[in-house]
Amino acid sequence: MTFENLINTFISHSSNKESCVITSRIRLARNLSDVPFPGWAKKAERKETYATLSKALKKIAPNKSYFEELENLESLQKQVLVEQHLMSRELAARGEGCGIAVNKDKSLSVMLNEEDHFRLQAIQPGLSLKKAYRALSKMDDSLSESLNFAYDEKLGYLTSCPSNVGTGMRASVMLHLPALYIADQITPVLKAVSKLGLAIRGFYGEGTESLGHLYQISNQSTLGESEMEIIARVERMAKHVVKAEENARKKILSDNPQRLIDKVGRAYGILKHASIISSKEALNLLSILRLGTEVGSFPKDTLDLFDQLMIQIQPAHLQLNAGGKLEIEKRDEIRAKTISSHLQNLHPPDSICNKNEVKTNNTDSLLKDS
Amino acid sequence: MTFENLINTFISHSSNKESCVITSRIRLARNLSDVPFPGWAKKAERKETYATLSKALKKIAPNKSYFEELENLESLQKQVLVEQHLMSRELAARGEGCGIAVNKDKSLSVMLNEEDHFRLQAIQPGLSLKKAYRALSKMDDSLSESLNFAYDEKLGYLTSCPSNVGTGMRASVMLHLPALYIADQITPVLKAVSKLGLAIRGFYGEGTESLGHLYQISNQSTLGESEMEIIARVERMAKHVVKAEENARKKILSDNPQRLIDKVGRAYGILKHASIISSKEALNLLSILRLGTEVGSFPKDTLDLFDQLMIQIQPAHLQLNAGGKLEIEKRDEIRAKTISSHLQNLHPPDSICNKNEVKTNNTDSLLKDS
Repeated sequence: MTFENLINTFISHSSNKESCVITSRIRLARNLSDVPFPGWAKKAERKETYATLSKALKKIAPNKSYFEELENLESLQKQVLVEQHLMSRELAARGEGCGIAVNKDKSLSVMLNEEDHFRLQAIQPGLSLKKAYRALSKMDDSLSESLNFAYDEKLGYLTSCPSNVGTGMRASVMLHLPALYIADQITPVLKAVSKLGLAIRGFYGEGTESLGHLYQISNQSTLGESEMEIIARVERMAKHVVKAEENARKKILSDNPQRLIDKVGRAYGILKHASIISSKEALNLLSILRLGTEVGSFPKDTLDLFDQLMIQIQPAHLQLNAGGKLEIEKRDEIRAKTISSHLQNLHPPDSICNKNEVKTNNTDSLLKDS
Repeated sequence: MTFENLINTFISHSSNKESCVITSRIRLARNLSDVPFPGWAKKAERKETYATLSKALKKIAPNKSYFEELENLESLQKQVLVEQHLMSRELAARGEGCGIAVNKDKSLSVMLNEEDHFRLQAIQPGLSLKKAYRALSKMDDSLSESLNFAYDEKLGYLTSCPSNVGTGMRASVMLHLPALYIADQITPVLKAVSKLGLAIRGFYGEGTESLGHLYQISNQSTLGESEMEIIARVERMAKHVVKAEENARKKILSDNPQRLIDKVGRAYGILKHASIISSKEALNLLSILRLGTEVGSFPKDTLDLFDQLMIQIQPAHLQLNAGGKLEIEKRDEIRAKTISSHLQNLHPPDSICNKNEVKTNNTDSLLKDS
């Protein structure tokens, strides 16, 4: 698969049952035994390990997978892969002796010689950590047949960073929580999640601010629990938060639907008619349109449009589409044009559920007799 | 003329040469000699004076003028007249023995038994204080034929408040200064005007915040200068400020036209698609659309639409149109609907002067192959 095909492949979330769960993601860290971790390896050692890793991986890789060494990727291409959550910022900063592999539908991906020798990742739309885990576990087993992973009977899988030792697993769900944000309830919810030993972070993982009201819940510890126990815990918490989001939506809709209709209308109006817009503002407004779809202001299939726009308007995607590096000001202009052109044929939001319509008295007379 | 005809009469400003001068206004304060000022008069005295005033006024009033005693007006009707600048808040608070008269095209109006016995007012579109003064002076002369105005050889016309003694005249121009506001230059300009002995105030005169980037410049003193000297001074200052506004517009258009296109587009988008909007926000956004028209983003004749909307969306106008008193929340909804319905057939803003168009690279491919 070419790079272009890869980045234009899009996972639809519109059929998710809990549509505020965007994706479920499992990541496994694996290292070869008897070989230094990537961070400690000399260049020659890293390249040698890379050869071993990629050989094993290619043997089991499904047809039409994308496979590339990092040194063959331009900086903008790497950034696009980061924006698509297929590559970490850490890996993007590296070059020779590192690589990336992604299957055709992007449900499986592997980083080679990132912090660990292998970072295996499975992504599924909606709340389906178990399905993601099963797929990844199969890949893990297949790789184990030809490779010797560093494993300690007592500790479990050995990893570069102690925080991953044990299962080497990170299970995470990406949640869209605009109603909790609007209802000013997001902070207590985030605090509750932290207190219960799970991590909750913004759009791009650790240390980044939440954009587009997207939050990622994941396990903190990888030790002392089985994979299935961790997954069950993350899923349980995700369901709690989804419930809170759903309640917040119901409350807004029953207390003050007009306020929500207004927010959705304004977001639509600004996105359609602005000619300069930052990533941050665009993501937050697209998030409101996404909420609009979920409460019936737009046709159901617009969820995919909004989700895809949220990816496509990010800096590297914009620049890659435009053919090269652009100044921030130019990006903000192209971003506005991109969004506006995609909203061109989208009708203005309906009133929510087609009830709650506001009646006005005869205002058509204005400008008559004048 | 009926009240309804009166309030639906609209003065067009679209042919003004300096379109950022909305109106020129002259007001004369006159009092009968040998009769107590309205504030000191007993009820019976005030009613007697009112009879004298209205008799003299009716004799000279042009055909189809509107004439009403305040006690016959409902509170909402009075507020509408305040919003149309035909009545002061002070007069609106009064009842018996007070009145209002307005000619057919609203260019002349009179308040009876406000702070003074007569407050004569002439309004003209654009920068035309002299024309307004000539019309008012004629009315003043006609009234003098049947009435004896309180006049002191040394001081001039005597008035209820010392600040009006002398000419009894206030000459003011209403200016639309959005570019000075956007360029963050409005404060120094306002300060300069004050320093030179003129008053500068927001939309509704004394003590009110500026709304819709509308400012009123007027003379402070009424003593020691002739009417024509005062008018010349106010006009000179108005021309200075207009020049500053025009320069600010040119600078924005040459330095960063995109920023202005963006502001106009966002204002259009919000006004068209919001479903709750306050007076203040609506006025400020309509002001930006008005600026949009002046820099070529909308057809020239939209100036009248925006100007009229700026009046029609004010609280009393909205409520009168809706048939009665409304809660703030309901007003904000009806205001949004009113504006939105009037922008329905208005095309989105063109790029300014049809140059400066932003080109984007092929963004249509987004969502293909997905």
